[in-house]
Amino acid sequence: MSTYQNRSIVMSKRPEGEIQDGDLSLKTSPVRDLAAGEILIKTLWLSLDPYMRPRMNDAKGYMDPLGIGDVMTGESVGRVVESQSDQYAVGDIVTSYSGWQEYYIAPGDQERMYKVNADGVPLQAFLGVAGMPGRTGYCGLSYLGKPKAGETVVVAAASGPVGTVVGQTAKKLGCRMVGIAGGAKKCAYVVDVLGFDACIDYKSGDLKQKLSEACPDGIDVYFENVGGEVTKAVAPLLNEGARAPICGYVSAYNATDMAAVETPFHILGALPKPPEHRFFLVTEWQDQHAEITQLLADRVKSGELKYEETIAEGLENAVEAFKGMLKGENFGKQLVHIAD
Amino acid sequence: MSTYQNRSIVMSKRPEGEIQDGDLSLKTSPVRDLAAGEILIKTLWLSLDPYMRPRMNDAKGYMDPLGIGDVMTGESVGRVVESQSDQYAVGDIVTSYSGWQEYYIAPGDQERMYKVNADGVPLQAFLGVAGMPGRTGYCGLSYLGKPKAGETVVVAAASGPVGTVVGQTAKKLGCRMVGIAGGAKKCAYVVDVLGFDACIDYKSGDLKQKLSEACPDGIDVYFENVGGEVTKAVAPLLNEGARAPICGYVSAYNATDMAAVETPFHILGALPKPPEHRFFLVTEWQDQHAEITQLLADRVKSGELKYEETIAEGLENAVEAFKGMLKGENFGKQLVHIAD
Repeated sequence: MSTYQNRSIVMSKRPEGEIQDGDLSLKTSPVRDLAAGEILIKTLWLSLDPYMRPRMNDAKGYMDPLGIGDVMTGESVGRVVESQSDQYAVGDIVTSYSGWQEYYIAPGDQERMYKVNADGVPLQAFLGVAGMPGRTGYCGLSYLGKPKAGETVVVAAASGPVGTVVGQTAKKLGCRMVGIAGGAKKCAYVVDVLGFDACIDYKSGDLKQKLSEACPDGIDVYFENVGGEVTKAVAPLLNEGARAPICGYVSAYNATDMAAVETPFHILGALPKPPEHRFFLVTEWQDQHAEITQLLADRVKSGELKYEETIAEGLENAVEAFKGMLKGENFGKQLVHIAD
Repeated sequence: MSTYQNRSIVMSKRPEGEIQDGDLSLKTSPVRDLAAGEILIKTLWLSLDPYMRPRMNDAKGYMDPLGIGDVMTGESVGRVVESQSDQYAVGDIVTSYSGWQEYYIAPGDQERMYKVNADGVPLQAFLGVAGMPGRTGYCGLSYLGKPKAGETVVVAAASGPVGTVVGQTAKKLGCRMVGIAGGAKKCAYVVDVLGFDACIDYKSGDLKQKLSEACPDGIDVYFENVGGEVTKAVAPLLNEGARAPICGYVSAYNATDMAAVETPFHILGALPKPPEHRFFLVTEWQDQHAEITQLLADRVKSGELKYEETIAEGLENAVEAFKGMLKGENFGKQLVHIAD
């Protein structure tokens, strides 16, 4: 028997709307011995992301729903502490979909598990700007947004890891970059540190008017990740030939009523001259996973790609951090630091 | 005081998921006198449509939600029985968004109210194949689907008024037309009467296999009105360059969980080579309203455009008919006959 004790966060009850006390709980169980070909990963950093909320619902989406008693889904960076696989050695650093737990046993050929070449890059960056959110921002913007120098690009949640990468990538290409974020502090950071040309505080009201003033030449690329009122403010400003890659619309993720939600597809599709817009998953560019991860990691290492993070300490604080993130209380990438 | 008594169906309680007893109730009230410029319309035929369900939810969609106590939304054909407007005479036949009631007072310049040139066409056709659903099918197919002779077109709810018009329009253009419908009776009708090349009964299982067999050259146009499993069966068969106009996805309209619903936008958008697809509202072609209504009415009159209808008798039977329609129990356009 292994000497490790595992702690995990499981879904005890399916939430309706916002997550309540008792929906998620901490569980302790011994770690079993490895079978041939398996590795044991010790979680170091856990990523918290908006997509985790819909996974808790009892409806088939583009991923299967969690069952009652299941460990919460999540990607982490961890260290291999035992290995029965010839593909991994003890000490290797990997990203994997371990879930919210301190130890994770995986087969050596686990899908979506990757060795990380840390090389001076903070490990947690591989969950943020050099990880799935970063690749989402980079690929969605580059391959579907197709920004050209001089064009105006708009992204919401601008201080988050996706928005951060979208904005700094577009700036590098010579675009006018306008962000939207919640609160004066985030907006100041987006302009002063990330180098956006403007950032609008959606909490201060008058979004339509302010966005219109920040985009005197209209909008050519709208990277969609929030939906709702932001999309409605963006829509009338879109130039002919505009592009709007859609990676999600988190403003609706706590909605309890599908049929009445006006998705970005409805808002954009029904415009007199709709922009090019479609939903995408970053896995479309799976064959470029290593290359784009390296490109983003290099920019982190050189200091060119800046980012912010909010760190909760210990697995026992993951639930509160998750609830806060869904309300936009985090500043930058939301992480849980599990171990060193 | 007017001598008329009005009966109406109001929303007493907001339904959660499927409509329950007590959510809708019958109310009687006197009809007030007309003010200058107004007309009094006696409802003859009421249309029941899937979009009415989301209007009952407490969430802003692309239409404002109904309030508690409000008369249910709905389009009808009626006769002007009193007029204080110089634009309408007693005896005129009009379509209007009167709601579910026997009498309706409207200003003479009411939006979306139109005089109907019946001329040998059954009045209720202006709520179906020569009305909003017919125009939706005709415009969505013609202007976004852009079918060419020899191409394969697929539509679900094939025996309904939208599918009926999509199919007969595509056949006229020389397309291979494949329908999907629920039950052997509807499928036989779609092939034998409407002239589709094939119709698949989604209730008999194995949809993917049967659809693949019915579309040996793949699918060039998918007219989307249902979503869910149908869209998933269609997706892998779409040819490069395919078009998929999206007018709705009724399979999700009773869902209580927005975030987990995989909309057609998600399914189609994430394909390796997504078809041209976007949401549309028939009001995009508002300037062609009269012309397209006339075109469809002429085809009804000549007998070229065939259709089926399910008729409930009397306002008091509208609620049961509505519940049945949301479950697909109707055959063709669902109507309520209110008066002659």
